[in-house]
Amino acid sequence: MNCKVTHEGFDVFDSIKTSAIRSGIKKKGDDLALIFFEKKATFASVFTTNKVKAHCVLYDEELCKTQEYIRSILINSGNANACNINGAQAIKEIIKELSREFNIGDNEVFIAQTGIIGEEFPTKKVTNALTKLKINLGKNSQILARAILTTDKNPKIISMECEYAGVIFHIGAVAKGAGMIQPNMATMLSFIATDLRLSKNSLKSALKEAVDKSFNRISVDGDMSTNDTVLLVSTNEIGELISEENEFYRYFVDKLTECCIYLAKEIIKDGEGATKFCEVLVFGANTDEDAQRIARSVANSQLVKTAIYGKDPNWGRIIAAVGYSGANMDVEKLEIKIGDITVFSWGKPQEFNKVALLEYMRENNSIKIYINLNIGGSNFNLYFSDLTNEYIKINAQYHT
Amino acid sequence: MNCKVTHEGFDVFDSIKTSAIRSGIKKKGDDLALIFFEKKATFASVFTTNKVKAHCVLYDEELCKTQEYIRSILINSGNANACNINGAQAIKEIIKELSREFNIGDNEVFIAQTGIIGEEFPTKKVTNALTKLKINLGKNSQILARAILTTDKNPKIISMECEYAGVIFHIGAVAKGAGMIQPNMATMLSFIATDLRLSKNSLKSALKEAVDKSFNRISVDGDMSTNDTVLLVSTNEIGELISEENEFYRYFVDKLTECCIYLAKEIIKDGEGATKFCEVLVFGANTDEDAQRIARSVANSQLVKTAIYGKDPNWGRIIAAVGYSGANMDVEKLEIKIGDITVFSWGKPQEFNKVALLEYMRENNSIKIYINLNIGGSNFNLYFSDLTNEYIKINAQYHT
Repeated sequence: MNCKVTHEGFDVFDSIKTSAIRSGIKKKGDDLALIFFEKKATFASVFTTNKVKAHCVLYDEELCKTQEYIRSILINSGNANACNINGAQAIKEIIKELSREFNIGDNEVFIAQTGIIGEEFPTKKVTNALTKLKINLGKNSQILARAILTTDKNPKIISMECEYAGVIFHIGAVAKGAGMIQPNMATMLSFIATDLRLSKNSLKSALKEAVDKSFNRISVDGDMSTNDTVLLVSTNEIGELISEENEFYRYFVDKLTECCIYLAKEIIKDGEGATKFCEVLVFGANTDEDAQRIARSVANSQLVKTAIYGKDPNWGRIIAAVGYSGANMDVEKLEIKIGDITVFSWGKPQEFNKVALLEYMRENNSIKIYINLNIGGSNFNLYFSDLTNEYIKINAQYHT
Repeated sequence: MNCKVTHEGFDVFDSIKTSAIRSGIKKKGDDLALIFFEKKATFASVFTTNKVKAHCVLYDEELCKTQEYIRSILINSGNANACNINGAQAIKEIIKELSREFNIGDNEVFIAQTGIIGEEFPTKKVTNALTKLKINLGKNSQILARAILTTDKNPKIISMECEYAGVIFHIGAVAKGAGMIQPNMATMLSFIATDLRLSKNSLKSALKEAVDKSFNRISVDGDMSTNDTVLLVSTNEIGELISEENEFYRYFVDKLTECCIYLAKEIIKDGEGATKFCEVLVFGANTDEDAQRIARSVANSQLVKTAIYGKDPNWGRIIAAVGYSGANMDVEKLEIKIGDITVFSWGKPQEFNKVALLEYMRENNSIKIYINLNIGGSNFNLYFSDLTNEYIKINAQYHT
């Protein structure tokens, strides 16, 4: 059992090719990407829980229900293809042209989109670019990881070569996301492939478990997009079909989760305007829901987020956010730690080394807040970013 | 039936005196205020729903349950007297000294506090200032309205002289609040007096109704404080005791509500760093809860708030916030208007005059967003502010 982490994305697979080019949807830079599978690949996906869904999400949800295999994933940035006039028609036309160009079935295309909501989709720009997209197919995961970005700055890419009981398999993945990041993954996209043979149901369970521990535990601004999608694909080239009771399956899920946590953390680090990578860890809640409620209340508090930006260990704002979360709590049992310094314990503020705590806030790019309710056995952790002038700048200027 | 609005606060009452001085709790400026009633006054109050409550709130809640009358309201800014070591003891000592100094019962003092959470309360600073506070008693509502401020810039003060069926009565009120403003009133304080004779129960119902339509419909940042308090007091000097079925009572509640809406709007206008006064009006929801959920989701969306700051009519962010609110909705029936321009109607983005809409966003200090779900009969409106660089500056720098 061992595992080597690299950052090659899908380039670790010989049967997966990628391509990314500029089609003109965005004002500058690459904006159209394709992941192509030489052979039919099984797949499973999770989507935004926003009741307003982009056309690609509506299309893919249907595809997941009816289709066993896909051969390609088309991704564009610059236009979310949501709440617009021609969205459904655009997808129809693109898929028709794409399946013809690549000689695959018209039900073998998965489609993901990100960008501005409500604008007409420039179908022709995409269909005109398909030939070029095909010509460029190769080991281009790095370029692809850049082409799917919107306001995020850095590509998010990982790959793993793992060995279990003599079987060597791979995981490769990319992600995008920097704003509108909250609860159930928001304007975030992630595409993950493996060559390990897994049934569709196993893919589904594995993805759900990994996403619950990673992408569903990050928050930049508490907003949630109409387009969020995480897709897991298997080329089924390696090993025998393994059942979910098998220890090999558990090993795979662990590795998949590691990949997803890495990408989720990269999203937070690249959070719009973020200067700090923060984590809130809630312990001892009555229920899982309560633990999660408190973590989200703290992570989404504008006052907590600005205090962290201001390098201020303002635990009063943390305690207020715990109090208004709606979760069951007893202030007389509450404990709060910032870094490893206890600031509040069993209803009382603590004497602590103020210089050390200020230093912790100032010198660390990574801030941890521990909240122990001491009333139950449920825990939850959430990664989040601070709220900064740069966030305001980015989001006050991002056009419509 | 007529009513004259002025901005004299409690100075319209001969039997109410006010005083505000500097005691040294804050680094500069007045920070201690007293409202003094010549005769016993009936009272009713609503408090924060935060589960972490300041010591003054815990004290006042008990007072409301057990006491018929008060003679004074003591207010300090600069220290919230919450989650600290000596809070309960501080209140005990202050009330003992205050009741002695002013020769009133020790159960006739209402106490409200605002400022930083978690710091030891400087009891001596307050008790040492009581004599000076007494000497200064007079018609000082303007000074008082300033002394209770923290990060807000402008005093919020109103008074009314109203006539109903030949009876002339008054309402006078002040408020504070600029940040941590959300759901059920946060770090906001408001003190309202009338001379109209009302039973304790009528005061309670009147206040609840007025607050539901005013202070509970504002949001600056979605945070909620540990200290929020709205207090309504009657000196019982005017008129006969009126029942809640009486039309005079309805008239009083309407006027009280007007006062509260005025103060609530002033809080939003003075919202930390705010450049725009915004209102979201939700119509046609299935339930009142859904209407409120959508209004809060839109008003608290960092992306909507920054778009308004950027003068950008980004309705995509509005629609996304409607979608993730959790409320029942059907995008195919949804209508959205910004100002009087329809941007989205029955599932489709609309052709509209972009120049006119941009001008509306740029030229107006007051922005209205209308959301019609077209699926039911429930409505809700909420006042909120935009999210700006100045907000970040204020809250990243506000010390602990």
